[in-house]
Amino acid sequence: MQAAASGLQAEIDRLRHELRSIVAERDTSSRDEEEITISDYLLARLEQLGVTSIFGVPGDFNMPFLDYVEDHPVIQWIGNCNELNAAYAADGYARVKEHSIGVVVTTFGVGELSAINGIAGAFSEMVPVLHVVGVPSTVQLKTRPLLHHTLGDGRFDAYTKAAEQVTTSQAMLMDKNHAAAEIDRILTDCITRARPVYLTLPSNMVSEKISARRLKVPLLRAPPVNQPDVEAFVLDEIVKLVAEADEDVIILVDACVIRHDVQEEVKELLISTRFPVYAAPMGKTAVSEEYDRYGGIYIGSISDPAIKERVETARLILSIGALKSDFNTGMFTYSIPTSRTVELHSDHTLVRYAQFPRIGMKHLLPKLSARLRQYQQGAGELVLRPKLEVPKEHGDAITHAYFWPRVGKFFKRRDVIVAETGTSSFGILDVPLPDQSVFVSQILYGSIGWTVGSTLGAAIAARDKKLGRVILFIGDGSLQLSVQELSTIIHHELKPIIFLINNQGYNIERNLHGMDRRVASRVVASNPDTQQKVQ
Amino acid sequence: MQAAASGLQAEIDRLRHELRSIVAERDTSSRDEEEITISDYLLARLEQLGVTSIFGVPGDFNMPFLDYVEDHPVIQWIGNCNELNAAYAADGYARVKEHSIGVVVTTFGVGELSAINGIAGAFSEMVPVLHVVGVPSTVQLKTRPLLHHTLGDGRFDAYTKAAEQVTTSQAMLMDKNHAAAEIDRILTDCITRARPVYLTLPSNMVSEKISARRLKVPLLRAPPVNQPDVEAFVLDEIVKLVAEADEDVIILVDACVIRHDVQEEVKELLISTRFPVYAAPMGKTAVSEEYDRYGGIYIGSISDPAIKERVETARLILSIGALKSDFNTGMFTYSIPTSRTVELHSDHTLVRYAQFPRIGMKHLLPKLSARLRQYQQGAGELVLRPKLEVPKEHGDAITHAYFWPRVGKFFKRRDVIVAETGTSSFGILDVPLPDQSVFVSQILYGSIGWTVGSTLGAAIAARDKKLGRVILFIGDGSLQLSVQELSTIIHHELKPIIFLINNQGYNIERNLHGMDRRVASRVVASNPDTQQKVQ
Repeated sequence: MQAAASGLQAEIDRLRHELRSIVAERDTSSRDEEEITISDYLLARLEQLGVTSIFGVPGDFNMPFLDYVEDHPVIQWIGNCNELNAAYAADGYARVKEHSIGVVVTTFGVGELSAINGIAGAFSEMVPVLHVVGVPSTVQLKTRPLLHHTLGDGRFDAYTKAAEQVTTSQAMLMDKNHAAAEIDRILTDCITRARPVYLTLPSNMVSEKISARRLKVPLLRAPPVNQPDVEAFVLDEIVKLVAEADEDVIILVDACVIRHDVQEEVKELLISTRFPVYAAPMGKTAVSEEYDRYGGIYIGSISDPAIKERVETARLILSIGALKSDFNTGMFTYSIPTSRTVELHSDHTLVRYAQFPRIGMKHLLPKLSARLRQYQQGAGELVLRPKLEVPKEHGDAITHAYFWPRVGKFFKRRDVIVAETGTSSFGILDVPLPDQSVFVSQILYGSIGWTVGSTLGAAIAARDKKLGRVILFIGDGSLQLSVQELSTIIHHELKPIIFLINNQGYNIERNLHGMDRRVASRVVASNPDTQQKVQ
Repeated sequence: MQAAASGLQAEIDRLRHELRSIVAERDTSSRDEEEITISDYLLARLEQLGVTSIFGVPGDFNMPFLDYVEDHPVIQWIGNCNELNAAYAADGYARVKEHSIGVVVTTFGVGELSAINGIAGAFSEMVPVLHVVGVPSTVQLKTRPLLHHTLGDGRFDAYTKAAEQVTTSQAMLMDKNHAAAEIDRILTDCITRARPVYLTLPSNMVSEKISARRLKVPLLRAPPVNQPDVEAFVLDEIVKLVAEADEDVIILVDACVIRHDVQEEVKELLISTRFPVYAAPMGKTAVSEEYDRYGGIYIGSISDPAIKERVETARLILSIGALKSDFNTGMFTYSIPTSRTVELHSDHTLVRYAQFPRIGMKHLLPKLSARLRQYQQGAGELVLRPKLEVPKEHGDAITHAYFWPRVGKFFKRRDVIVAETGTSSFGILDVPLPDQSVFVSQILYGSIGWTVGSTLGAAIAARDKKLGRVILFIGDGSLQLSVQELSTIIHHELKPIIFLINNQGYNIERNLHGMDRRVASRVVASNPDTQQKVQ
């Protein structure tokens, strides 16, 4: 009954919000009606979402909008070296700046397509990013002249069709009367679904005036409520399984705990239950790695044997926010039978073999914490905490066995630690990170070079949030893809610490494919000795 | 009758070709039947097309194919710094290496999407480029596990759907029995339509064995023949207009003369008729700028006044391969009435107001040359050849008025001259270039940073063709987008001459938008003096 009442209350809140938005917009009685440009409306919404910095590259079709960005009192423009790096930066910013979003602005065709891989990465890894594209005027979009930046064949919708593949919602602002509602719609999708969205701003629309009334009602952040009777049934089922497991339960946290904003709810569950907790690679730092019931990283068959044993023999695994990709599961080597698993996701729940669509974890977790508090006394055996031992090495070579534990000693609380796909992200996984540190890596999508741009965004977000140092680990192979963005980092007086691991090529590809293959070697051209050695 | 016979002959040639391909493939009688891997089949076709170099970035899904590239006796692998630059390089290679194509190899998702803007540019500007993407195995493509590089939601076709927007043909090799025919189909489309094509190579297909028999029949390069009776009618109409114009005819060449491979046919027409010839910006160097009847660049209202007068008052304008984009026409300011215009295109012809679909210029031009030879005696007045005068300058500043004519004196025959969009491409337009020089610029699509990658490709093609120097003009704003590719240029011991025009930001955007706007300024971070001055 309590759950049902709570669900009804949430639905009431939701309906009230919709009503307030509509009433605010229709309220023509107000004498001091404020008009605002579409650009300023968008920027006001972004400011409400906590956005302080917008990334991108200017182009003739987006410059009218960029004037409004430049003139905005709070939001600053970060001009990037290229659009892919700008998209990466927006992604890094959104990851570190929880409850906000990343924003990237590009120009029609040439700019937006250059950024699309960065947007796809944000889609894959569930990062809320708004991609604003400055496009030709609404008249040109209709008459379709042979403009520069087009495909030359009159197809003005081709770029949008490509964007539809990698964004969760799109809005093409063709009519100022719908502009505010359209902007609100895609921003709501962006924050509630944690996925990128796409907005085209025709050059003549940016300065059109619209009513500012909707701005009085903040955007709704909460995901849809769970249907109360189904939710109550699910809760009963989970509680029953916990009881049957004699409290031999472990919790496994993963990417979506971070992405779908349930870190606080999970923390409450951990405190309530005292169940041991482990993390998948993409869930690293979702739970403090200094927490006394935290046991380390579970990654299937390549886990530390003690962790593997503890996780896989538990009588019940409560998995939260799982994203079971190949690299996140030790190449699909989880050995946890479905019969002993409960999975909580953002928009559905799995209890053993049963699926419960539209039962999301955001609303379920607090109720679960309340119900499971009674099992705290019997929580499973103590966890072997991961230890950080730096081996003694002889000789000049810096080995991985030494290096990763050693940098572990270097980390401090509130550090932001960015690890490039490959050697860096694998190397750092087993290093316990300090409390309140943030681990940033692109383990599912794995686009090399991503960390250079995302370090820029992460560093700006860290400055906003008064976090500590930003520390990047990257190899020479990946750095070359996006190296110019270091200039933007320097230009904005950000001071990340960068560990450049120079192994003269793509080491991950060598290991996958053959140590003597030339194609795996990309050598820094300024070092002729190395060139000759490798090629 | 002659035209009709010629058309019938071409159709006979075409049918014979198809027959030979099929017969070759079905010829199981041959005792020494040769089997070949799909990779080697593809590489053999590329070698037949004159490809010596393949560009790209390795990734785990394309490395099985790259082994075959590495082991190929003729084709070399050019490892790029990133995929966008690789696509630009393939584009630059194809532009300079006439009758061949550019090839870029990327990996699933992260790689191919990074390259897509380069592919879109090749589509827009009609450059034949093959984009080969290494993708997961055919089993994985069907079962769709949560692999790295995916969007995380099981959509394995999303990247191909994006590619469909910017390529003219696609082939997904899922069945080895169709592999050879599919490869031949898209390569034929690539060379005959002069557009990029897209090929996915599943990791398990690269080493599958197929029959090599089809390789005995070279790919067909010729475009479809024109329908003889329509073509004869069109020829009569054009000849009648030339006669009515009292031979006051000028020829205007444009981009598609180069892209659709009719430079030889146009040269024959010029020699036959002695009509004065002008070029649109995108047609620069389609006709030798040292030719005594060449009159310079026509670009609508911003043309040199003498050129504008001469072109626009001619009684008949024979336009060949026009691509009337904004930047190619002085922002749509052509002042040439349709009633005095004949337009020849790759796949249609316009005679004043009448349209003739499927009457293409490749087969039409030789017949037109033969028919118009009789009008040579009366060819229009002599042309004022463009002159190259270097003004005397006082003071230290290097002005545009001085600089561009001065570099004009520096150019030599057989130079390849690459000009970045903006200041560089506009600056060089009015400089007459030497005979046999090649002008490379992306005037329609206009993606800044494109020239760095394309200079790499152009330099390799120039080496193949034993052309002269490769000379790049680029600003500091554009260079930063793709600057790392200079390392590949150095690594392969290519020695382009680079003029870096440092005007501290995006000058073209300043002129369009406001000289004091911060967003138009991207300052090289290593120069703190300039930083403070501009920001």
